[in-house]
Amino acid sequence: MSRTQRVAVLGASGYTGSELVRLLTCHSAAHLCVLTGERHAGRAMGDVLPHLSQIPLPALERLQTVDWDKLDVVFCALPHGMTQSIITTLPNTLKVIDLSADLRLADVDVYAQWYGQVHKAPALQKEVVYGLSELARPAIRAARVVACPGCYPTSVQLALVPLLSAGLIATDGIIIDSKSGVSGAGRAVQESSLFCEIVDGLHAYGIAGHRHLPEIEQGLSRAAERPVVVTFTPHLVPMSRGIFSTLYVRLTGRATAADVRTALAESYAGEPFVRILPEGRVPHTRHVRGSNFCLLSVFADRVPGQAILCAVLDNLMKGAAGQAVQNFNLMTAQPERMGLEQQPLFP
Amino acid sequence: MSRTQRVAVLGASGYTGSELVRLLTCHSAAHLCVLTGERHAGRAMGDVLPHLSQIPLPALERLQTVDWDKLDVVFCALPHGMTQSIITTLPNTLKVIDLSADLRLADVDVYAQWYGQVHKAPALQKEVVYGLSELARPAIRAARVVACPGCYPTSVQLALVPLLSAGLIATDGIIIDSKSGVSGAGRAVQESSLFCEIVDGLHAYGIAGHRHLPEIEQGLSRAAERPVVVTFTPHLVPMSRGIFSTLYVRLTGRATAADVRTALAESYAGEPFVRILPEGRVPHTRHVRGSNFCLLSVFADRVPGQAILCAVLDNLMKGAAGQAVQNFNLMTAQPERMGLEQQPLFP
Amino acid sequence: MSRTQRVAVLGASGYTGSELVRLLTCHSAAHLCVLTGERHAGRAMGDVLPHLSQIPLPALERLQTVDWDKLDVVFCALPHGMTQSIITTLPNTLKVIDLSADLRLADVDVYAQWYGQVHKAPALQKEVVYGLSELARPAIRAARVVACPGCYPTSVQLALVPLLSAGLIATDGIIIDSKSGVSGAGRAVQESSLFCEIVDGLHAYGIAGHRHLPEIEQGLSRAAERPVVVTFTPHLVPMSRGIFSTLYVRLTGRATAADVRTALAESYAGEPFVRILPEGRVPHTRHVRGSNFCLLSVFADRVPGQAILCAVLDNLMKGAAGQAVQNFNLMTAQPERMGLEQQPLFP
Amino acid sequence: MSRTQRVAVLGASGYTGSELVRLLTCHSAAHLCVLTGERHAGRAMGDVLPHLSQIPLPALERLQTVDWDKLDVVFCALPHGMTQSIITTLPNTLKVIDLSADLRLADVDVYAQWYGQVHKAPALQKEVVYGLSELARPAIRAARVVACPGCYPTSVQLALVPLLSAGLIATDGIIIDSKSGVSGAGRAVQESSLFCEIVDGLHAYGIAGHRHLPEIEQGLSRAAERPVVVTFTPHLVPMSRGIFSTLYVRLTGRATAADVRTALAESYAGEPFVRILPEGRVPHTRHVRGSNFCLLSVFADRVPGQAILCAVLDNLMKGAAGQAVQNFNLMTAQPERMGLEQQPLFP
Repeated sequence: MSRTQRVAVLGASGYTGSELVRLLTCHSAAHLCVLTGERHAGRAMGDVLPHLSQIPLPALERLQTVDWDKLDVVFCALPHGMTQSIITTLPNTLKVIDLSADLRLADVDVYAQWYGQVHKAPALQKEVVYGLSELARPAIRAARVVACPGCYPTSVQLALVPLLSAGLIATDGIIIDSKSGVSGAGRAVQESSLFCEIVDGLHAYGIAGHRHLPEIEQGLSRAAERPVVVTFTPHLVPMSRGIFSTLYVRLTGRATAADVRTALAESYAGEPFVRILPEGRVPHTRHVRGSNFCLLSVFADRVPGQAILCAVLDNLMKGAAGQAVQNFNLMTAQPERMGLEQQPLFP
Repeated sequence: MSRTQRVAVLGASGYTGSELVRLLTCHSAAHLCVLTGERHAGRAMGDVLPHLSQIPLPALERLQTVDWDKLDVVFCALPHGMTQSIITTLPNTLKVIDLSADLRLADVDVYAQWYGQVHKAPALQKEVVYGLSELARPAIRAARVVACPGCYPTSVQLALVPLLSAGLIATDGIIIDSKSGVSGAGRAVQESSLFCEIVDGLHAYGIAGHRHLPEIEQGLSRAAERPVVVTFTPHLVPMSRGIFSTLYVRLTGRATAADVRTALAESYAGEPFVRILPEGRVPHTRHVRGSNFCLLSVFADRVPGQAILCAVLDNLMKGAAGQAVQNFNLMTAQPERMGLEQQPLFP
Repeated sequence: MSRTQRVAVLGASGYTGSELVRLLTCHSAAHLCVLTGERHAGRAMGDVLPHLSQIPLPALERLQTVDWDKLDVVFCALPHGMTQSIITTLPNTLKVIDLSADLRLADVDVYAQWYGQVHKAPALQKEVVYGLSELARPAIRAARVVACPGCYPTSVQLALVPLLSAGLIATDGIIIDSKSGVSGAGRAVQESSLFCEIVDGLHAYGIAGHRHLPEIEQGLSRAAERPVVVTFTPHLVPMSRGIFSTLYVRLTGRATAADVRTALAESYAGEPFVRILPEGRVPHTRHVRGSNFCLLSVFADRVPGQAILCAVLDNLMKGAAGQAVQNFNLMTAQPERMGLEQQPLFP
Repeated sequence: MSRTQRVAVLGASGYTGSELVRLLTCHSAAHLCVLTGERHAGRAMGDVLPHLSQIPLPALERLQTVDWDKLDVVFCALPHGMTQSIITTLPNTLKVIDLSADLRLADVDVYAQWYGQVHKAPALQKEVVYGLSELARPAIRAARVVACPGCYPTSVQLALVPLLSAGLIATDGIIIDSKSGVSGAGRAVQESSLFCEIVDGLHAYGIAGHRHLPEIEQGLSRAAERPVVVTFTPHLVPMSRGIFSTLYVRLTGRATAADVRTALAESYAGEPFVRILPEGRVPHTRHVRGSNFCLLSVFADRVPGQAILCAVLDNLMKGAAGQAVQNFNLMTAQPERMGLEQQPLFP
C-alpha cells in the first residue's frame, strides 16, 4: 500500500495546482505522471509557471486525453463545478482528492442553494469524506474520495470544532472576521484582482453571503450537534498568501480563556501541523508562509465571558495544497509529514 | 476672525506632522510660520521629507526656540506625553490643536491607568474639547484647546455614536475588528515597522488592550448615556495608509439594517466628509486615500437582529491631520472644507 | 480665450482617464461635460471608479452619443489605435489632447513599423504638436492637436534633450534603464497584471523592442540634429505609480557632471515642474507621487568621462494626465500651474 | 569526511542568519549546535524569529560563551567588521564560512579604502578563498576559510566572468544596473528601511560608490586578466527578496548575443543552480524566490555590437545563505545540492 503512487494534478496551471506540483515533485512517494490545463494544453509547465522550470515535468494536456488507467490518485484543482462533472466518469479504482468546493457540502440542497446550480453527482456525494485532516483522520484513511476544506473553513474549524465538541463555547454569537491574501481568489483574470486594484488598500467582500459560510456552519453544527449560525466577514489583504481569522466567542459556564487554550492544546497534542501559541503571543501570517502549519492563539477579552481566538495558516498550503498532500499521505498510508517538512519562508 | 492665521506645526518631521504641512501649505487661511522637530532641528524640511522639497518652508527648529507670541494657532503632532508637558507653558491666547492622545481622555485617572503615568495637565484637561468634528461642532467652534480623536476611534464613533444616541443598537456585544495601515504607527524607528517585517503578511496586535479602547468607550458611553464596554481588535495591514473598521452590533427592538442606514444618512445629511454608501456597497480604504472622507456602510447579517457596519477612512487625514485642519477651520470661522478638497488618489 | 472650457474625457474609466477626471474636477477653468467609456456606458463614474464617488460627474456614455458641438477641448485617453480612428471625424474647431501613442510619431512609416498597422490619419499627423510642455511651449500654445508624450519618453527627454542640444553628451552609447509602476500598463485585464504576478518581484520586459523606443529616439535625434540610437530596457516594479529612469551617458570634450547639472539647471530655471536636485541627492519615485513634478539628478561616474542621471516622475501625472493638463493650460492661455498644485502624497 | 558536521551560526537573528538556520535544520549532514545573537542572548530563536518556532533549536547565546571545540564548521553572519575581529581567536581546526564583506577583498589596502578602516586580519586574509561556488570549486573544496560573495557581485560575476575569460566582451564600458529587495539591507533598525519609506516607490542609492564595486571589479579583473572598471548603480525595490541585475556589455570582434548565450550555456552545463534561459525569455526575481537558482538570459541590443544580459537570484539564497550552504557541501565533501533542493515559492 505504501508504494509510490502514480499521481495526476488536474488544473495544474492555477495557483493551487502549481502549489500541488511544487509539493509533489519533492514527495518521495508520489510520481507525478499527468498535469492538465485546458487553456494551456500542449505547453510545458515551465512556460506557464516559470518558477517550476527547474524540474522535469510532464507537459500540460487536456482532461480528455488523460489515460486514467495509469493513475492511482487524482488531485482535482479545477474551477468550481468541473469536479462534479467529471468525477462520475472516472474509474472507481482511482482515489480522488478534490480541492474545489464541489464536494464539500454533504447536503446537495444546501449546495444548490449557495451555488445556484443542481449538484451533478448526488449519489457520489454520499461517499465523500470531508478532509479536515486532524479532525477526520480515520475516515480519510479509508476514503476513496476526499473533499479538501476551503481555506477560511480550515482556519475556523481547527479553532472552534474542539471547543464546540467540548461545550466550552456558546453555539450562538460566534463572529468570524477573516482576512485573506489575494491568491485565495485564484489565477482567474479579473479586474478586481489587478495589482493596482489591490495594492496599498483593504476591503471586505461577500459580507454575510460568502460561499464558505455553509461549509463553516456544516462543520460547527456537526461539532455542536445542533445548528450553528455564524457571522462571517472575509476581507482581502494586499499580500499574496495567508489567512488570518479573528474569532469572537462566548464562553459557557465558568470557562475561561485559559480553559480554551488548554482544551486546544490537548486536542492537538502531538499534531505535526497545528500549534497552540503560549499566552500573549499573536501569530502572523508570515510565520507560516509556504508551510503547512496552522497557528492558534487564545485571548481573554475585557468583556467578561468572552474570548478572542486567532487562527492563522497559508491558504495555498494548509488551506489547500498542503492539506491535500496531508490527506494523500493518510489515504496512501504514508507518514503524515511526508513532503510537508518545508519551514516557513521569512522574510 | 477669518483673517489669515499664523500657524505652527510642532513635531513636523513625523508622518502626521508632514501631512499637516502638506495640507496647510495649500490652505488659503493659514500661514505656516514655525515647524519644530527636535532630532532634526536646523535642517530644511525638504531634507527630512523630500516630498515637501518643492514648497518654500521654514526650517525645523527646537521647541525652546519658538517665539510663541508670533503665532495664532499651534498644531501639536508630538510624541505622546509631550503635549501635556509643554501646553501649560504656552501663552493662553494661543489656540491649540493636539493630535496626540495626551488630551483625549476627560478622566485623568483613566489616562493614568492606560498610559501608565500621571496626567501632567489635569487642570487644563477640563477645558479641552474632544474634536470629532461632525459630533461636536459648536464646542469646537468655541474651544481654545481641541484634542483630535485617534484614527480608530474616529472610524468607530462616526459609525456608532448616532446609533447609540438613537437607541438603535444594544450597548453590549459591540465587536470592533479594525485594520490599519502602517503609518498609524508613526515614523518611529523600530524593528516591527521594518519593510520586511510587514510586507506580505498580516497580524493582530494589542488584543483587548489597545490604548484606543478607553477613548472609544468614552465616546460610546457618552452617546449611550451609560457605560459601554466594547471588544476591540486592531490588525496591521501591509499598506501605508487606511483604516477599515468592521463593526458587529445587535439591533434593538425591531430595528433593521435599513433603519440603521437611514439613521446614519439623516445624521450626516449635508456633511461634507461623511458618506453613507448605498445598500450592498462595500468601501475600500483605497477609495479615500489622501482625502478627508469617511465612508460608512451597513449590512444585515444572516444572524437575526444583528448588523455589520464598515467604516473607512485615511488614518493620516480624517484620522489625524485632515480632521485637525477641519477643526482649525471651525475654530477660526473658516468654511469647513477649506484646504480639504483633495480627491482620493487612486491607484 | 481664458474663459471656462467645456471639456470631455474620452476613455474615462481607465487609470489615465480617471486621473484626468481627478485633476479636471479641481481645475477652475475646466467644466467637465462629457465622459466616455465603451464597456461601462450608462454607468455612473462612482460605480466604476469609487474613489471619484464624492464628486458630481456626468455618467459614462458611448463615443457615438457625444455631442461634439457642445465641447471646446477633448482629452483622449483611449486604447491605442482609437484616436487615429475617430479624430478625423471630429469638428475641426475642437482642440484635441491625445494621451495615447497614436499621434506621437511624426513619421507615419515609423509608426507602421513599430505598431504593426498603417497610420489611419496621416494627413492630420502633420499638424500634431508633440507636447513635451517644457520643450515645445510656443508650438503647444498654438496647437489644435497635441500628442502627449509617453511616460518613459518624458522622463528621458527632459533629462537628455537639453544636453544633446548643447552638445554636452555623446549621441552614441546612451543607455536608458527604466523602472515603472504597474499603472503604466493601464487597467487592461490580463494575467501579467494580476496582483500575485507582480507583488514581491521585479522583471524586465520589452528588452530592445519597447514601443517607446522610436519616440525616445525621435526626440533625442531632433535635439542632437542627427540620428540617435539608444539602448532602452524597461522594468516592472511592484508599485502602483512612478517612473525611475537611470541614464548612462558619455560626456563630450572636457565636460563634467557638474557642467551637466549646471546646464540642466539653466535650461529649467523658473520651470514650475522640473527640478534639478543638488549634488549627491537621489530622487525617489515616492517624492513625486500624485504630483506633476519631474526630478532630475546628475552624478559623476567612476569611469572617466561618463555621467549617470536619474529622472523621476509619476507616470500618471507628468507622464500622462498631469502633462496633458499642463498642455491644456498652454493651449487655453491659462496659468501653467492651474489645477496642478497638488503636493506629493507621502507616505 | 562526510560525517555529520557540528555547526554554529554566528549572528543568527538577522535575515541572513535565520535563512541559514532554515536551510541547516533541513540539511542531513549538519547538526546545528550553536546560535549566537548578542542583542538577544538567552532568548529562544522562536521568540526572535517566530517563523522558526516549529523546530527545536538551541537558544541564542553570546559569542563569548561559545565552546568552539565542540564545533566543526562556523557560519559567520555577523555585522561587517566583526568576523575580522574574532576570526583570529578561533581554533584553526574550525572551518569558517563568512557571509560578511570582511574577507572578500584580497587586497587589504582596497578593503581599507572602501571600508574606511584597517583590515584586522591581514595575515589570515591570504588563506581566504573567495567562494563563488561554480567558479572556484577546487579551491573551495580545499579551503579552511571561505568568504561568500555579496549578493550583487554573485549575480554580476556569474554572468560576466565566463565572457571575460573567453574574451567575448570588452573590458571597458560595462554597465551594471542592479535592483534589490529590501532584505539585502539586513534587519538593522533604521528609518530608511521602514515599511512606509519603502513601499510603493523605488530609488537608486550608492551611485558610483557602493561597497560591492571593488568586489565586482576584483572578480571581473581576475577573469579578464587586466583591470576592469565598471559602472554600477544599485536600486532598492519594494520587495523582500530578489536581485535583478541588468548588464550592458560590448561584444568583441564579431561575437553575437547568440555566441554569448552559447558560451554561458557551455560554462554552466551540468550546473545544478545556474540556468541559461532560452532566447527571448526574461527571468523574474519571483521565479527564484526561496531557492538557490541563478537565472541568466542574453539579448541582442538594437545598438550593433552590444548585448544586454539579465542575472536574477534570491539575495538571501544564492546571494548569501544558499551559496554558503553550497560551499559547506563542497568543503565537507557532501553532494553539492544537499539541503538546497527547495523549489521557488510562487506566488
